[in-house]
Amino acid sequence: MNGAESLLTTLVNNEVEVCFTNPGTSEMHFVAALDEVAGIRCVLCLFEGVIAGAADGYARMARKPASTLLHLGPGLGNALANTHNAKKGSSPMVNIVGDHATYHVQYDAPLTSDIEGIAGPVSHWVHTSAAAGDIAADAAEAVLQAGNDRVATLILPADVSWGDNPNGPVDAVVKNPPPAVAEALIEQAVEKLKSGTNCMLMIGGREVTAQRGLLLSRIGKATGVKVSTDTFPARVARGAGTATLERLPYLAEFAIDTLKDVENLILIGAKSPVSFFAYPNVPSVIAPQSCEELVLATAQEDIDQVLEALLEKLGAADVEPDIHPLSVPDLPTGALDGISIATAIGHYLPENAVVVDEGITAAFACYTTMESARPHDWLSLTGGSIGWGLPAAVGAAIACPDRKVVCLEGDGSAMYTIQALWTMARENLDVTVVIFNNAKYAILEVEFARTGARGGVPGPKAASTLGIGSPDLDFVALASGMGVQASRATTAEEFSAQFAAAIEASGPRLIEAIVPAM
Amino acid sequence: MNGAESLLTTLVNNEVEVCFTNPGTSEMHFVAALDEVAGIRCVLCLFEGVIAGAADGYARMARKPASTLLHLGPGLGNALANTHNAKKGSSPMVNIVGDHATYHVQYDAPLTSDIEGIAGPVSHWVHTSAAAGDIAADAAEAVLQAGNDRVATLILPADVSWGDNPNGPVDAVVKNPPPAVAEALIEQAVEKLKSGTNCMLMIGGREVTAQRGLLLSRIGKATGVKVSTDTFPARVARGAGTATLERLPYLAEFAIDTLKDVENLILIGAKSPVSFFAYPNVPSVIAPQSCEELVLATAQEDIDQVLEALLEKLGAADVEPDIHPLSVPDLPTGALDGISIATAIGHYLPENAVVVDEGITAAFACYTTMESARPHDWLSLTGGSIGWGLPAAVGAAIACPDRKVVCLEGDGSAMYTIQALWTMARENLDVTVVIFNNAKYAILEVEFARTGARGGVPGPKAASTLGIGSPDLDFVALASGMGVQASRATTAEEFSAQFAAAIEASGPRLIEAIVPAM
Repeated sequence: MNGAESLLTTLVNNEVEVCFTNPGTSEMHFVAALDEVAGIRCVLCLFEGVIAGAADGYARMARKPASTLLHLGPGLGNALANTHNAKKGSSPMVNIVGDHATYHVQYDAPLTSDIEGIAGPVSHWVHTSAAAGDIAADAAEAVLQAGNDRVATLILPADVSWGDNPNGPVDAVVKNPPPAVAEALIEQAVEKLKSGTNCMLMIGGREVTAQRGLLLSRIGKATGVKVSTDTFPARVARGAGTATLERLPYLAEFAIDTLKDVENLILIGAKSPVSFFAYPNVPSVIAPQSCEELVLATAQEDIDQVLEALLEKLGAADVEPDIHPLSVPDLPTGALDGISIATAIGHYLPENAVVVDEGITAAFACYTTMESARPHDWLSLTGGSIGWGLPAAVGAAIACPDRKVVCLEGDGSAMYTIQALWTMARENLDVTVVIFNNAKYAILEVEFARTGARGGVPGPKAASTLGIGSPDLDFVALASGMGVQASRATTAEEFSAQFAAAIEASGPRLIEAIVPAM
Repeated sequence: MNGAESLLTTLVNNEVEVCFTNPGTSEMHFVAALDEVAGIRCVLCLFEGVIAGAADGYARMARKPASTLLHLGPGLGNALANTHNAKKGSSPMVNIVGDHATYHVQYDAPLTSDIEGIAGPVSHWVHTSAAAGDIAADAAEAVLQAGNDRVATLILPADVSWGDNPNGPVDAVVKNPPPAVAEALIEQAVEKLKSGTNCMLMIGGREVTAQRGLLLSRIGKATGVKVSTDTFPARVARGAGTATLERLPYLAEFAIDTLKDVENLILIGAKSPVSFFAYPNVPSVIAPQSCEELVLATAQEDIDQVLEALLEKLGAADVEPDIHPLSVPDLPTGALDGISIATAIGHYLPENAVVVDEGITAAFACYTTMESARPHDWLSLTGGSIGWGLPAAVGAAIACPDRKVVCLEGDGSAMYTIQALWTMARENLDVTVVIFNNAKYAILEVEFARTGARGGVPGPKAASTLGIGSPDLDFVALASGMGVQASRATTAEEFSAQFAAAIEASGPRLIEAIVPAM
């Protein structure tokens, strides 16, 4: 058995069953092994940004890592932005990066680069396998490292791949459970919650499951404290039957207002809230200086344990959570805009759908409008690097073939990784993409004003970098060029009809919604 | 004057006159400064891979760097692959990477990452500007560093951009000339050339100008030694009136055969030839073990000086070079394939055209077929990372608005940075793109066999990663979705007519040539 076969077998033994890839010469033995080792689904993407985003979307929905197979430093570089998003969102990921043969690196061939150097900033763990006899054990270690919601990057030299591995593959390894939180820390949180001070509980981490949300709501009701998710929860259960949780606003000014009276902020998997960007004369830290923050659990620790312990210690077992009732909005009429689109989607959204949200400004109304729609999961952009939505929808659809995926996508963000549409068509993924086409990076118009640059008013050259009309992008043509059935909507009625048809159908559909800028 | 304005002014003072960008919030003061500082052309690209490739293409044709403006670590990550290509091709480049304000980095906001860590592997020089008062001097240093055919990356924190710079901009700095090569080394080369041994002169570096080619040819004729470029010259003057130079073959087996009798290999700007990839049982080093290699000049040293000194010392001033005559091929008829396309392009190629070659296997015939076409420059992929061609064509067209750019592009490579078409349309660039659509990564079929994986025969899963039909890509639709006029050719006659029309017209055109796999 060669190194590549032992690597793949080890991945399969450890339930890593999907490989998103765009391979090159140095990965040909890995590619060959795909036909020798059963149990791995190989998904070709036309660009590595799609690969990394798909692996992220997959991990969020499958609750386990996919593998990626990347072509040396540049292939990893192309995957870097969405690996950054995965890392920020605590998505487990096993990257396999092919490299030249160990003895070939010294010659500095054209594709030679410092792969470990490139991998480091976006990985929790990086390792270069030294020999074919090591690769299976290294792969098992990568799976372990990724298991705890981390990004593991394993570099696979070509001769490690093609060499004989006398040690064979590694069986399933025992995964480390998330570390438990110390009793004393939980007691400290209980004291704060009982102190009568203005408290807030904020949850984050890889997932706010329905169960976690309900526990949090009950704790909040029992103690009278506000409960919230962080601004961009990686995955949160939403819709009818889920807990009513606030969400920390994106705009620092609003977030600061939300927290202005909070004396004790207790973080469960969420990070200490800070402004997304720095602005002249806006503080970086969101909570008031007087606020005490308690990190009760990091994203990597046992969030379920913490919530259950809090509930018990607060004696709140009988408290009912506040939940969203089912309330399906009526169909909109007239002009097409963020609100009417949100309403139509909320109307038709099927039970158990997965919503992937990279709609930025244009899809802003969707989150609130759909809070009482049929139950669904909501995925957000966690690392701020655009070009994540379409790839994440690919991954979510592969993880959950029986669930409809609805991808809310800004025009500018869509163009970063538009190649994802081809993989949707090739794999016949059940994804409905809604492109919010306002012909601009609308968020940047807001941000330009917020930074106060040039008095907040862009001149002609600056304006030219914020708008992406001229020429207008035609997403129907782009989708059709990659084999995805597409249509354009300019009124609420057109959108509703097209969205209903897409939900009714199976397989990829794209709707280009022509919307005004804010 | 704020930091951003002093930075831009310093760039303009140093003849950095183009900025390829896709900015974000942390770059808004730089963007605002574009309207305050005259003399800089700002070109918006829809993805950073386009930005870096355009900067590379621009630098090769303008013989000076453009600047890029990138959005934090992920924006730089997206630019990484084409920055790698630029670095390998000795293209000067000044990257400006926006970062959070200096005081904000500590809070680890979603877009925070180790930008210096990401930049390091693809840059010769990396620096983070510490204060608004420093930024102009830092920019001048970046220009100096890039001047000598290197990649300089300057990180610009938001508060450095918006803060007041009491020191103002920096004037034009005196650029360092390329280091001269020591007399003794040149003498050593002369001795070898006169020794009667089997010698070969190989040239590389940022550019094989017509003049350098002619000098090399004369030296070769005077001494009876073979003269050659490296495998993928960054830029080489070709066509009628240029010197007849060999090109080292890509396939290691052929390259080894080319050098098998060479006793003395003299490198002028070229690197020691090595196999592009490692393969089982194929040596990494191309030259025979007995061959002595002399690095007469690196890519960064004074190649003109070396060639002129050699000519003089060899007393070859009166030797005439071997040059290609003008020989325009007749129009092809019948089936459309790599040969007929090459012939048609050779027939219509206008004088002074710039050919950007990322056609990989399908465009293989073009290089030889067009050697006696009207004089033109030829740009090759230098770092092996695909997705370079369309962006490089953008940059070349901006550097040379009066020259027709012809981009030979593989289907798989095109999809990596297909967003470049939009910038061609927006800027109305005079580029004719020829997509060689064979619905596969044909090179990888070759490479799969060469690696000997699975006996050289891909199984069904492996085969699925090598083919990109199913669904077929429709490049006419893709181009039209981004505002570029496009057509499809399936016969030599159709191609000739469409290519002639594209050459006749001004502005971007795309021809999708449906070609068989090899």
